[in-house]
Amino acid sequence: MSNSRRWFLRALTAAGGGIAVACRGTGRDAPAAARSLLGAPVDDYGERSPFERIARRVAQTTTPENSSSRTPLQDLHGMITPSSLHFERHHSGVPNLDPAAHTLMIHGLVERPLVFTVEELKRLPSVSRIYFLECSGNSATGWRPVPQPSVQAGHGLTSCSNWTGVPLSVLFKEVGVKPEGRWFVAEGADACKMARSIPIEKALDDALVAYGQNGEALRPEQGYPIRLLLPGWEGNSSVKWLRRLELVDSPSMTRDETSKYTDLMPDGRARQFTFLMEAKSLITRPSAGQKLSGPGFHEITGVAWSGSGAITRVEVSTDGGATWADATLQSPVLPKAHTRFTMPWRWEGSEVVLAVRCTDETGFVQPSRAELVTARGVNSNYHFNAIQGWKVQADGAVIDAAI
Amino acid sequence: MSNSRRWFLRALTAAGGGIAVACRGTGRDAPAAARSLLGAPVDDYGERSPFERIARRVAQTTTPENSSSRTPLQDLHGMITPSSLHFERHHSGVPNLDPAAHTLMIHGLVERPLVFTVEELKRLPSVSRIYFLECSGNSATGWRPVPQPSVQAGHGLTSCSNWTGVPLSVLFKEVGVKPEGRWFVAEGADACKMARSIPIEKALDDALVAYGQNGEALRPEQGYPIRLLLPGWEGNSSVKWLRRLELVDSPSMTRDETSKYTDLMPDGRARQFTFLMEAKSLITRPSAGQKLSGPGFHEITGVAWSGSGAITRVEVSTDGGATWADATLQSPVLPKAHTRFTMPWRWEGSEVVLAVRCTDETGFVQPSRAELVTARGVNSNYHFNAIQGWKVQADGAVIDAAI
Repeated sequence: MSNSRRWFLRALTAAGGGIAVACRGTGRDAPAAARSLLGAPVDDYGERSPFERIARRVAQTTTPENSSSRTPLQDLHGMITPSSLHFERHHSGVPNLDPAAHTLMIHGLVERPLVFTVEELKRLPSVSRIYFLECSGNSATGWRPVPQPSVQAGHGLTSCSNWTGVPLSVLFKEVGVKPEGRWFVAEGADACKMARSIPIEKALDDALVAYGQNGEALRPEQGYPIRLLLPGWEGNSSVKWLRRLELVDSPSMTRDETSKYTDLMPDGRARQFTFLMEAKSLITRPSAGQKLSGPGFHEITGVAWSGSGAITRVEVSTDGGATWADATLQSPVLPKAHTRFTMPWRWEGSEVVLAVRCTDETGFVQPSRAELVTARGVNSNYHFNAIQGWKVQADGAVIDAAI
Repeated sequence: MSNSRRWFLRALTAAGGGIAVACRGTGRDAPAAARSLLGAPVDDYGERSPFERIARRVAQTTTPENSSSRTPLQDLHGMITPSSLHFERHHSGVPNLDPAAHTLMIHGLVERPLVFTVEELKRLPSVSRIYFLECSGNSATGWRPVPQPSVQAGHGLTSCSNWTGVPLSVLFKEVGVKPEGRWFVAEGADACKMARSIPIEKALDDALVAYGQNGEALRPEQGYPIRLLLPGWEGNSSVKWLRRLELVDSPSMTRDETSKYTDLMPDGRARQFTFLMEAKSLITRPSAGQKLSGPGFHEITGVAWSGSGAITRVEVSTDGGATWADATLQSPVLPKAHTRFTMPWRWEGSEVVLAVRCTDETGFVQPSRAELVTARGVNSNYHFNAIQGWKVQADGAVIDAAI
C-alpha cells in the first residue's frame, strides 16, 4: 500500500474527515431486542431484503412493449449484474414461451437442415463465460448532449452475466454450412420477429446459443428459453427468444439493420453492420444524482469494458481531465466483460470534475467526446463511448458534466 | 477439436444416437400463433419464467429456524450460483435487519475501538472477488454412507458468488490491533449469537466484511446487511449478520468451535479449528435422480473447487475409476471459486459408473473415500471431500454409487 493511501486510511478516524466513531458511549451498537427473536425459516427460493428497493429505470419509448429499462449501475457492486436488474430493450414485449414447445430451426444454405428442441440443445457441448451485453443505443444522449440525472438514466443499457450455451460453431458443423453460406439471419420468436444478419465468422469465433444466465435459466426478458449471444457486439444483434437461423449468402437487409441500428455520418452516408462495442468506462460512485456526505475519504468505483477484449488500464481524473492516475482493477479481468475498478480518494470539499477513461488489450484508448465527434459527427444514435464526467459541487451534490 | 470429439458430434445426426431431427415435415417448428401477440412490458425488477421451478431443497434438522436448504447443483450452469438458490444454514433463522440501524463494533485488544454504520463501511476501500462458500457439513453422509437421492441432497451445501466488501485488514489497521491480539471473535446479530474465533492471519490475508453479493446487496439469508467472508474456509466461520469483532489473545472456545464444527478422529481426539475446505469436485449432470434419455452423445459437466487456491486439473472416469481423462475447464478458473468443467461423452447404453477428481494449485489431489477414511476414520461429521461416483444403469437411471 502506498504512503498516500495509508494517509487516506488513517484520516478515517481523524476529527475532520472521520467516518467511524469511537465505540464507547456512542449508543450506536445495535439494540439488543432485535437479537433476541428467532428469524425466518429456510426457504426454497430466496428474495432480497424488504429494505432493498433498487430497481431498473423504465424509459418508455412508444408503448410499454416497445420500451427499455436500465440497470442501476450506481447501486451495484462487483462485475456481475443481478439477473433481475439486467437492462431490457424489447420491440414488442416479452413473450412467455414454453420451453417444451420451443424449437430452433437451422436451415438455408446448409447440407442438413435441422430442428432442435431446448432439451436437445442442452445435451450438446456447452461453454460458460462471463460477458457484458450493451445496447448500441446506450449513452446516446452524448451525441447531442442532454444532461442526465444519473448514470443509470444515461448509461444503464449495459449489464454483465455468466452465460452458458452451445457454441454456434457446433451447431453449424452439424448442419454442414455450404461454402456460399457467408452470413446467417437470426430471428426471434417475439411478435416483431426481430431479425439480424450476422457474418459467419462470428459463429465460428465465440457466438453461443445461450440458455443459462448467472447459473439458472435465461430470464424471460433476456430471451428465455434461448437467445443468440454475440460477445462484445451490440446487444440488438444477440437476438432473444431465438427460433430460427437461416444461412444466406449476403445480409438480408432487415428493418433493424437498415432503418435502425445504423450510424449516420456527417457526409450523409450511414455506417452499417457496426457490431463492435468499443471500449468504455463509467464512474458509478460518485455519479450524478448522488450527494457526498462531506469532505474526507471516499472510494471512486465503476466499471470498464471492451468488445475487443480485456481491459488493460483504467485511469481516473479528479481534476476534469488535466491529470490521470491508474485505478485498481478488481479480479477477474476478463475479455468482453465488465471490469470493476476502484480508487481511493479524499474530497477536500471544493468543486471538482471526476472522469474515467480505459484502454483495452488492442491498445484502443476510450476517446474524448471531441475526438469521437471529429470522427463521426453528431448525427448518430448509436455507439457513443466517449469519456463521461461528473461534477462534484461544493455542497457534495454530483451532476452530469461534459469534459 | 480432437478426432474423437468430432466423431461424437457427427453422431448427433446419425440414426441411432440422433438428437436433432431434419427440419422438413417434422412439425416441430414453433406454432405461429404464439408469435403474433405482444409480450409483457418492461419491468423494474425481473423474475424468472413461470416455467422454471428449480428450488433449494429444505432439509429440516430440528426446527424450521435451525435448518438448511441446499443448492440444486444438478440444474445449474456456469460458475455463479443465483442468489435466490445459494444454500442456507442457520441456527436461529434469518433476522430481518434494518441496515440503517445495524452497526459493526470492533473492540478488545485494539488501540481505538470503533463502531461503523453500514453506510460508513461502504465508503471505505472495497474489494470484489468470486469465491465459493461451502458448509463444512456438506457431503457428510459420505462418512457413514447413506445413498443420496441427488447431488443436491448429498452435496448442495456449496455455492459460488461475486462478493464485495471491505478488507478486514483495512478495518483492523484503523482500530490498531495490539500485538497481543492474535485472534478475533466474530459474532452475528442472529438470536443464537453465532460466534467463531478466527486467527488474525486470515484477517490480514483475504478476509472481507462483505455487503455485496452478485452485484446487489447480500441476501437476508446470507447475512444482510453485512457478513464476515473468509475465502476458502468452512462456511460457518464466515459469520452472517455480523455485529461485533473482538480482538483477543486466544480462541474463545465458543459453542460452535467446541461441541460443533470439530472432527472426531479414530483415537477419540478431535481436530479443532479445521477451517480449510480442501479440494473437491462433483459431476452435476448426469447425477443421481436423473435419467438419460437414451444412448448416444451426452455432455458430462460439474464443478470443482479448493479452499487452497485455483483448480489446475479435473479428471473424469466413465469406468468406475479404472481410467481417467482430463475434462475441459471453463474460464475463468479462479482461486477459491467454483470451476465449471465439461467433457463430451457417448453413452453406449450399458451400466457404467461415472466419477470425477480434481487437483489444486498446491498439488493436492482429491482423495478416494478409502484414502480419506484411512487418514480420518469415520467418526467425523465435517470436511468430507472424497470422490463421488454415480452409476448409470442400463435403463439410463442414475443412482448414488460408492467407488
